[in-house]
Amino acid sequence: MNLPALKALREQLALNAGCSMFVMKPTNVSYLCSYPCRDSFLLVSAKECFYLTDFRYFEEASRELKGCKVVRVDSSLYASVAELCRRLKIRKLAFEPDYLTVLFHNRLSEALGKYTRLLPLPGIVEGLRRVKSADELVKIRKAVYIAEEALRKASSMRLSGKSEKEVACELEFYMRGLGAEGAAFEIIVASGPNSSRPHHLTSERKILKNEPVLVDIGADFRGYKSDLTRVFFSGKITPLEAKVYETVLTAQKKALAAAAAGIAAKEVDSAARVHIEKCGYGGYFGHSLGHGVGLDVHELPRVSQNESGWLLPGMVFTVEPAVYLPGKFGIRIEDMVLITGKGAEVLSGDLDK
Amino acid sequence: MNLPALKALREQLALNAGCSMFVMKPTNVSYLCSYPCRDSFLLVSAKECFYLTDFRYFEEASRELKGCKVVRVDSSLYASVAELCRRLKIRKLAFEPDYLTVLFHNRLSEALGKYTRLLPLPGIVEGLRRVKSADELVKIRKAVYIAEEALRKASSMRLSGKSEKEVACELEFYMRGLGAEGAAFEIIVASGPNSSRPHHLTSERKILKNEPVLVDIGADFRGYKSDLTRVFFSGKITPLEAKVYETVLTAQKKALAAAAAGIAAKEVDSAARVHIEKCGYGGYFGHSLGHGVGLDVHELPRVSQNESGWLLPGMVFTVEPAVYLPGKFGIRIEDMVLITGKGAEVLSGDLDK
Repeated sequence: MNLPALKALREQLALNAGCSMFVMKPTNVSYLCSYPCRDSFLLVSAKECFYLTDFRYFEEASRELKGCKVVRVDSSLYASVAELCRRLKIRKLAFEPDYLTVLFHNRLSEALGKYTRLLPLPGIVEGLRRVKSADELVKIRKAVYIAEEALRKASSMRLSGKSEKEVACELEFYMRGLGAEGAAFEIIVASGPNSSRPHHLTSERKILKNEPVLVDIGADFRGYKSDLTRVFFSGKITPLEAKVYETVLTAQKKALAAAAAGIAAKEVDSAARVHIEKCGYGGYFGHSLGHGVGLDVHELPRVSQNESGWLLPGMVFTVEPAVYLPGKFGIRIEDMVLITGKGAEVLSGDLDK
Repeated sequence: MNLPALKALREQLALNAGCSMFVMKPTNVSYLCSYPCRDSFLLVSAKECFYLTDFRYFEEASRELKGCKVVRVDSSLYASVAELCRRLKIRKLAFEPDYLTVLFHNRLSEALGKYTRLLPLPGIVEGLRRVKSADELVKIRKAVYIAEEALRKASSMRLSGKSEKEVACELEFYMRGLGAEGAAFEIIVASGPNSSRPHHLTSERKILKNEPVLVDIGADFRGYKSDLTRVFFSGKITPLEAKVYETVLTAQKKALAAAAAGIAAKEVDSAARVHIEKCGYGGYFGHSLGHGVGLDVHELPRVSQNESGWLLPGMVFTVEPAVYLPGKFGIRIEDMVLITGKGAEVLSGDLDK
């Protein structure tokens, strides 16, 4: 179990009318347990912690999880939660309103009856997850390393003549060989004009010579993710491509230089955005600068113009400025950084760009 | 657009207080559009149909989808839905209570205000999806073919000495080479005693000689799934293994012979279950006989002891009797069948067992 996280969660719950919490979101459960969870849930009261699972995972969970009681749910999850609430005298039970479905909520509410009231409490565990522990950083570094290696392989591959899908498939296979559970998300391989679409779906298009190929890739290592992007040029580089690449690269350098503990997240976004605007591409960078990465590929903190938060030591996020010229090409350079006491460490700093 | 499905959905909505429907579940949206959807939603009124998507997919959807209006959602999805409801004078809007989160429901309800009331309407599109169209069957047959080929490859591979994960990875790569989008679910490779756990997580365990290896695999072909299981013996087969294998195989034959239009789904389950009980393994077949397969790996119909439904022509489902002997080994044989006017066609009938 992740005891520091459970302690922090209980402090939050104490501030929220002293409620207990039923945690269902898989990455939140995994986080609180320091264990990759499947179809399993956590009931956290002020003093106790119950892991609810079924016959498939009961044996392994009982062996692996210390510091919480593993409950085998044989028939109804609703009934199991209700029984625990009565036994523990829980009158207020917080839940994740951005995860529970309307149907699940209604059935659970019915099972709980009048004894226990359900309270929506969004973002509590997600807030704790913003700052990574030393254990988490070990796994994130490994996930970054695997994606870096895959990008090195891509840079050494002959891309032209292959389809985007073939390249994606080969890179995913390669990452698994390096110990990844799999890709952290569907790998984006966007060639030529496809690179101008930020979320291009990797297609059957054959990659041509002399065109940029954007590869956005991440690994899943024991549940922790990475997310990196590079653009490769297999032949000639046009003056426009070179100018845009230089613009995005400088924008990223400025953002990386701005990132530090105590700085507002939106200032890091601005550092890149202002440079892109100065170079005349202000209208062509249509998304935010970055996002947190951990058990989810997209998590807190948000690094955008509208964000009101501050950077804290231990936060890990992407810095991914871009310029997309519709119908022509797009350039995105994405690295992952860790905020430290001294500034920002680029976790993927060894990778060429 | 899937016009027959939209017509059938509208007939159902007419019976439900003449409401319109906001469809969010990705496979339901894909089904109604005959188009693989991502982060896109459908508003279906008695006369019109709107596809709500964002900048990433707007261009392609506008080109591909005929017979519905493609709406680009730029800021708030809630506001876009509310605006459409007012414009179309929709006072009652059905939603999928097993998909919408509590938070989403509350925000949508707020945006709709008093003008439009939200009505939970579970299982409507899922009910339509039970019976497959000719177009769907083409894709399902291809998904089955790819998984069959992967199992043929597995049967010809030298399994002993490899880890379960290596085998799974190789088979997934192979399926992609045959045109699959990917695996339909995480491939299960369960060797030796691991095969006695119905939902074993494919592990780093090295496969030994003279032990059974269970491979449960499916392909995703253009959104449609397959799901097949075979057990391979790489060396000697013990008398117990042979006896259990024979029991499961005969149970499956009996179930396949029982499957036909107009038959209760639970009778098909019984045909296999009774035989397994007769052979003395009644306590070792702890799951239902099968489940529908289509856009989801698990969908309607359910083929179990508790199911009250009847089989209809066009239904596609798995027939997967099994015997799991804890700590020893497990045997599951899983094929996919299509109910026809004349009985049941085994879609994976060419595959050895």
